[in-house]
Amino acid sequence: MTLPIDPVENLALLIRCPSVTPAEGGALTALANMLKPLGFSIERPVFSDSGTPDIENLYARLSGNGPHLMFAGHTDVVPPGDESAWKHPPFSATIDNGEIYGRGAVDMKGGIACFAAAVARHVAEHGPVKGNISFLITGDEEGPAINGTVKLLEWAKAKGEHWDAAVVGEPTNPERLGDMIKIGRRGSVSGTLVVHGVQGHAAYPHLAENPVRGLVTLVEALLDPALDQGTKDFQPSNLEVTTIDVGNPATNVIPAKATAAFNIRFNDSWTEETIMAEIHNRLDRAAAITKLRPGRETAINYELLWRDRPSPVFLTRDEKLIGTLSASIEAVTGRKPQLSTSGGTSDARFIKDYCPVVEFGLVGQTMHMVDERAALPDLEMLTRIYQRFLADFFG
Amino acid sequence: MTLPIDPVENLALLIRCPSVTPAEGGALTALANMLKPLGFSIERPVFSDSGTPDIENLYARLSGNGPHLMFAGHTDVVPPGDESAWKHPPFSATIDNGEIYGRGAVDMKGGIACFAAAVARHVAEHGPVKGNISFLITGDEEGPAINGTVKLLEWAKAKGEHWDAAVVGEPTNPERLGDMIKIGRRGSVSGTLVVHGVQGHAAYPHLAENPVRGLVTLVEALLDPALDQGTKDFQPSNLEVTTIDVGNPATNVIPAKATAAFNIRFNDSWTEETIMAEIHNRLDRAAAITKLRPGRETAINYELLWRDRPSPVFLTRDEKLIGTLSASIEAVTGRKPQLSTSGGTSDARFIKDYCPVVEFGLVGQTMHMVDERAALPDLEMLTRIYQRFLADFFG
Repeated sequence: MTLPIDPVENLALLIRCPSVTPAEGGALTALANMLKPLGFSIERPVFSDSGTPDIENLYARLSGNGPHLMFAGHTDVVPPGDESAWKHPPFSATIDNGEIYGRGAVDMKGGIACFAAAVARHVAEHGPVKGNISFLITGDEEGPAINGTVKLLEWAKAKGEHWDAAVVGEPTNPERLGDMIKIGRRGSVSGTLVVHGVQGHAAYPHLAENPVRGLVTLVEALLDPALDQGTKDFQPSNLEVTTIDVGNPATNVIPAKATAAFNIRFNDSWTEETIMAEIHNRLDRAAAITKLRPGRETAINYELLWRDRPSPVFLTRDEKLIGTLSASIEAVTGRKPQLSTSGGTSDARFIKDYCPVVEFGLVGQTMHMVDERAALPDLEMLTRIYQRFLADFFG
Repeated sequence: MTLPIDPVENLALLIRCPSVTPAEGGALTALANMLKPLGFSIERPVFSDSGTPDIENLYARLSGNGPHLMFAGHTDVVPPGDESAWKHPPFSATIDNGEIYGRGAVDMKGGIACFAAAVARHVAEHGPVKGNISFLITGDEEGPAINGTVKLLEWAKAKGEHWDAAVVGEPTNPERLGDMIKIGRRGSVSGTLVVHGVQGHAAYPHLAENPVRGLVTLVEALLDPALDQGTKDFQPSNLEVTTIDVGNPATNVIPAKATAAFNIRFNDSWTEETIMAEIHNRLDRAAAITKLRPGRETAINYELLWRDRPSPVFLTRDEKLIGTLSASIEAVTGRKPQLSTSGGTSDARFIKDYCPVVEFGLVGQTMHMVDERAALPDLEMLTRIYQRFLADFFG
């Protein structure tokens, strides 16, 4: 039986499966086929939810006597976009000039391919693992993320699983392999603001109430002052007003309603609850008694609707886990990785409730883009980093 | 030959012509048929412009020895909207409980019907008019107003016409007949403001430039401080931001562009040129160096586009014209009309370049609404007011 020791070969097998969310596309089966020869038991739970597609997931388990390490990730990928714009077909895994092309090459079939190769080499070198390794892999990370990691964790916990540490294989390096480990993530919360006015003719403003004035006042209150100045481990929290919409085509009509949406990325100065309370306070203060136009003082009539599920902020404080991964990276690349909490959210926000979690994978530059691709030397280096980490973790 | 001395009958004939802009609908022909028996010569110039429909207009002329009075107005009407919502069909001219129903009843077939009746009664009572009367009537006041009053005035002037005074028969009374003469109008100018940013991911704001921040800053500069405090004859100038649009549905995306539109109604503190210069100055000042987000100071990248043709402000200073009309109103209604410059624009803004112009017509409450209608006593009173005005003007 061949062991999956070659990360490039592993990755080519995975890229050739067109697993655009929510399609499994053969990718989880391909992974299962890599892991079975290593002694992993495989489970393929499917999760459902009304209004979203059923999602296939994979939990692979290698049992031994010792600590339990989870490797987490996803085989689903974002759509390739305009396929004719790609240098090589997005599911062809073509190798060209030392790079392997394909949707998911770095986000994050590449990380999975390297970790599988690292486990294979570890087993080949050291024999049976002195502990437990599980692959917790979802097909719903790029989609609504309802039938993916959250349910997979609950499902595994209900079976009695528990973990000592987790590594997420997302692409974390901005430019070169070894640049950056993510040891936490800012939280995220989104809201929609609606200001109600009174429609009317632009020549008779005293008979109307323009909601745009109120909305601009409230948006100013959201934007200023800054939420915080950052913390030891995190960038400053940031609020972006992502859209304002009125949709009134008539120049002589005062509209009835104006809407804005915003997204906040918040650091460990806040929790979901305190940041949401801060926003409510700012809006209530600004709305209370405002001079909406010359001669007219009134309260702004607004509604605030929170959108989606807020993502909590987290920071991994397990110095042994961080130190072991960091040392492995330095040993292979010669570079000391930055310990960062920057960027968007990831499934690590769910895993952190079960065990310490860090994120390290490939270079993210081409993720979600046309011509997504991974350098072959990076794949080999990442495999060696994971291999060294396994040796130290179970050593 | 019957003379058109009954304003209700005149109005019924006009309402039954479905003259929704740009359709003539028979309304100008109906008017011509009323005026011919009074000795008017009729001309029906049609004006064209690429991109807009051809428009029929009417110029009727009664010649005599003395001053020249123009009566100006339009027979086109706005669409009836949901016809099933009307108590009586919008082109039926049904009389119900002392009111005549129909689209255009007050705006402004009613004013035309009354003025025609007033001229008929004047002729019946006094014989030939001691001067000149012209009806300058367009079919393009509710539409783009390109092939209407502006061209009709130029056309008549080119023929050698000149006028000593003009009355526009638009509905000027807010509640009761006799409330208000319009002796001027604020100017109007509209603009569109576009702020260009750099699109990006909401989690990486330093790689993007959110145009919403810039736009909100510029909108604040438009709104504050107030443009002026009003003048002896005019309300304060007013600016309304009529829409803001970004159209970004994604909560995690910073948009590339944000747009706002605004409309200004300006008084005689300003000309079109000075108000537009003021807006440019406010925007340039606000855009110069602005703290768009914590740590980033940059100029706001904006464009300002002026929309449509600006309408100039004007004020009629002919005290004899105003006094004569005012006295006629007081004699018939017992009420001294307010001399106002409030409200929207009207075709008087074009006529003021040719002769002094005032506006007086019916009560405007139902204009542009479902169940537009005029009270029969109002039609009789307005006819008597116009009749008295003719007697004094030519007396």
